[in-house]
Amino acid sequence: MTETQNSSSPSRRALIGWGGAGLALGAAAAGGAVAAAKAGNDVDPTAAEAGGAVEFHGAHQAGIATPVQDRLHFAAFDVKTDDRAEFVRMLKDWTEAARRMTAGKAVGEGAYGGLAEAPPDDTGEALGLKPSRLTLTIGFGPSLFERFGLAHRRPEALVDLPQFPGDNLDRTRTGGDLCIQACADDPQVAVHAIRNLARIGFGKVAIRWSQLGFGKTSSTTPDAQTPRNLMGFKDGTRNIAGTETDRLKKFVWVGDGDGPGWMEGGSYLVARRIRMNIETWDRTSLQEQEDVFGRDKGEGAPVGKAKERDKPFLKAMKPDAHVRLAHPDSNGGITILRRGYSFTDGSDGLGRLDAGLFFLAYQRDVRKGFIPLQRRLSAQDALNEYIQHVGSAVFAVPPGVRDKDDWWGRTLFSKEA
Amino acid sequence: MTETQNSSSPSRRALIGWGGAGLALGAAAAGGAVAAAKAGNDVDPTAAEAGGAVEFHGAHQAGIATPVQDRLHFAAFDVKTDDRAEFVRMLKDWTEAARRMTAGKAVGEGAYGGLAEAPPDDTGEALGLKPSRLTLTIGFGPSLFERFGLAHRRPEALVDLPQFPGDNLDRTRTGGDLCIQACADDPQVAVHAIRNLARIGFGKVAIRWSQLGFGKTSSTTPDAQTPRNLMGFKDGTRNIAGTETDRLKKFVWVGDGDGPGWMEGGSYLVARRIRMNIETWDRTSLQEQEDVFGRDKGEGAPVGKAKERDKPFLKAMKPDAHVRLAHPDSNGGITILRRGYSFTDGSDGLGRLDAGLFFLAYQRDVRKGFIPLQRRLSAQDALNEYIQHVGSAVFAVPPGVRDKDDWWGRTLFSKEA
Ligand code: HEM
Ligand code: HEM
Repeated sequence: MTETQNSSSPSRRALIGWGGAGLALGAAAAGGAVAAAKAGNDVDPTAAEAGGAVEFHGAHQAGIATPVQDRLHFAAFDVKTDDRAEFVRMLKDWTEAARRMTAGKAVGEGAYGGLAEAPPDDTGEALGLKPSRLTLTIGFGPSLFERFGLAHRRPEALVDLPQFPGDNLDRTRTGGDLCIQACADDPQVAVHAIRNLARIGFGKVAIRWSQLGFGKTSSTTPDAQTPRNLMGFKDGTRNIAGTETDRLKKFVWVGDGDGPGWMEGGSYLVARRIRMNIETWDRTSLQEQEDVFGRDKGEGAPVGKAKERDKPFLKAMKPDAHVRLAHPDSNGGITILRRGYSFTDGSDGLGRLDAGLFFLAYQRDVRKGFIPLQRRLSAQDALNEYIQHVGSAVFAVPPGVRDKDDWWGRTLFSKEA
Repeated sequence: MTETQNSSSPSRRALIGWGGAGLALGAAAAGGAVAAAKAGNDVDPTAAEAGGAVEFHGAHQAGIATPVQDRLHFAAFDVKTDDRAEFVRMLKDWTEAARRMTAGKAVGEGAYGGLAEAPPDDTGEALGLKPSRLTLTIGFGPSLFERFGLAHRRPEALVDLPQFPGDNLDRTRTGGDLCIQACADDPQVAVHAIRNLARIGFGKVAIRWSQLGFGKTSSTTPDAQTPRNLMGFKDGTRNIAGTETDRLKKFVWVGDGDGPGWMEGGSYLVARRIRMNIETWDRTSLQEQEDVFGRDKGEGAPVGKAKERDKPFLKAMKPDAHVRLAHPDSNGGITILRRGYSFTDGSDGLGRLDAGLFFLAYQRDVRKGFIPLQRRLSAQDALNEYIQHVGSAVFAVPPGVRDKDDWWGRTLFSKEA
């Protein structure tokens, strides 16, 4: 472990304030394994063992090509300050906190405490838990560029999403000046991270909406067992794997000539809260369910094929089958990286579960990724009878934090960039 | 594994309908280990390995003394039928489904499918997942006894909870004719179970409210690392362990002379959704936080002591400290079994996390357990400044399902009992 590498040893005050906490954390950190730092390279999906730490630094932010963790806490924030310097200071504080938390450490230099008379630097509920492959990924929404004199830096690719047929968006679950995607194998670790960032941001930003995802619905590691979504189907069979450097470059990372320069190495994120009409789906015949997707339910094989990984023969599927419409071969090659999670947020007051898919997709350009694809799906997809898009947001996800002097948003906010 | 013991082999139809599903489940079941059946004995907390199955049958329902699993989905239902026979049939169907799901099997005889023209028996999203120590625990609320001619069978101990000072109950999160507590180490397994029961109950019951818990806040296994609640404190240090047969008998299980006979071997469950004022708490000094509980934050040791498990010296604590007030020595011996979970349900529209503790407590008699304790706490506890009770329910939890011919609620509904 690199425990001593970039953390100062616990201060005496902290030890007084927090009793045995230093010890407990030491043990937890030793249980994990920080993946070797490879700034400038793509994330190595095999680097982080279960429970271990995913490297925070790199050319790209972690949490995109990183093998999908089990749990999600996603938060959209609104900015509450007009003071650019104060906001930048917060981004630096966030970066430092994110660096520590992703390594399995508590927020705050010299362990967790500070003085007994002061609030603790860290809220404490992740103490003793492993890093759990926590990744924290920041994104900037279109509305952020109406502030801080940033209008001229807004990427052309960061368009406001159009209204799609069937959209039934809840304003209180839509938009946001910025977002943090926290993914981890332990939900307490993901919740802790968002909460501590919200706390550091107090007075400067406020949570606009947030979403807990309890199970991944996509995989970026094709060798792993494909997870099932709440419709009972394997989801993420055909996706971009975290190891496919070429396809990541082609479809996910903002490239050299794409512009603006501050986004190079970044990506664009579309988040959609998609409610499933679970009760109706559950009363639908198996045949109809399989027709809707164009794959079978047990194995996940494309129509007429035997195995999940067999190449889909699109013409064997119904014309309105989800996979037929979404497959690159039928839509001019559109390819996105899906990284969604299932959610269940209690029931809706009418006895129905408020459950579905919190869809997250990364792409190099929303205008060539989500938007044309969703135009097609929203118009034709057989699945539309069983789902409804109720929340929506889009974010420009800046490149990775290169090293320990770098910070989230530097390429956007600092003059040199 | 006992795969072949009480499941018929997959029918041909099912195999046609579901492709490789039978195979996938076989593998999953083999990965788990059904704890040896010990009907009539207390649950052996060491019996179920990680990912394995907890025995469904026994003198007591599983999910009470069972070592606390990581995740929760709790649902309160209202009855929608006046037909007693139909309701009893549903309880039998539920029992059979619960028996299968807790063993890691899909709902429905002969695997998952049935005909392609019919909706699948199982919704499918838990296919291929391990049993994950799933337990399903049923409870009957006071309002159930206003139906089906059950009034004379209502236990005296099943009182309606009084209004406590500070209660701010949301009617849409309060009450219920019956409840199912689903606990598992995998949230998808817990969500799947509630959903499939709701589906089987369609037309007979409807979900009134439901609650996802993402992290346990109590432990019933004293040797394990004590989990932390969202206030950052270890929670469940002093609790009844699943192995303490004597204390379970004294404080949790309804005994011989307690009456009514149909509840013998059962227990009473109080559920309270307790919202934490997270943002205020996070701005409170460490000293104040520790004073509130009477324990230190790092180690969890009682005031003036060094170790979490040291015996608390109550007089060293502030008079309004939570632990001082809740400790049996200061309140005539009141003892309950706590089995709560942390929740985070997004944010509340005011930029605050809607987060807290979903408090679950089991006891032999609510009038000697939760009610007098909560009267005291609601009047005096220093913690009240930082929490608010927003949901509430109480249930009579019948004894365990003895064997494969028995069913949930038999002792209440069948004439012989
Ligand atoms: C609740 C909503 C949705 C559900 C339940 C769902 C489910 C699925 C399933 C089961 C598959 C097949 C397995 C796989 O290859 O991953 C799939 C494929 C796919 N879906 Fe969706 N999906 C949903 C919404 C969307 C949306 C909104 C988009 C994009 C706008 C999308 C894009 C795709 C793509 C690109 C594929 C891969 C197609 C291929 O290459 O074969 N999905 N989806
Ligand atoms: C959000 C609300 C609550 C929080 C955060 C909380 C937290 C805690 C903590 C940190 C402890 C000390 C560690 C331990 O022994 O488990 C504790 C103990 C305890 N709490 Fe709570 N609690 C809450 C509500 C309640 C309620 C509503 C009751 C019962 C009406 C209760 C009953 C107890 C009992 C019986 C103990 C053990 C005391 C002892 O034997 O030392 N708590 N609680």
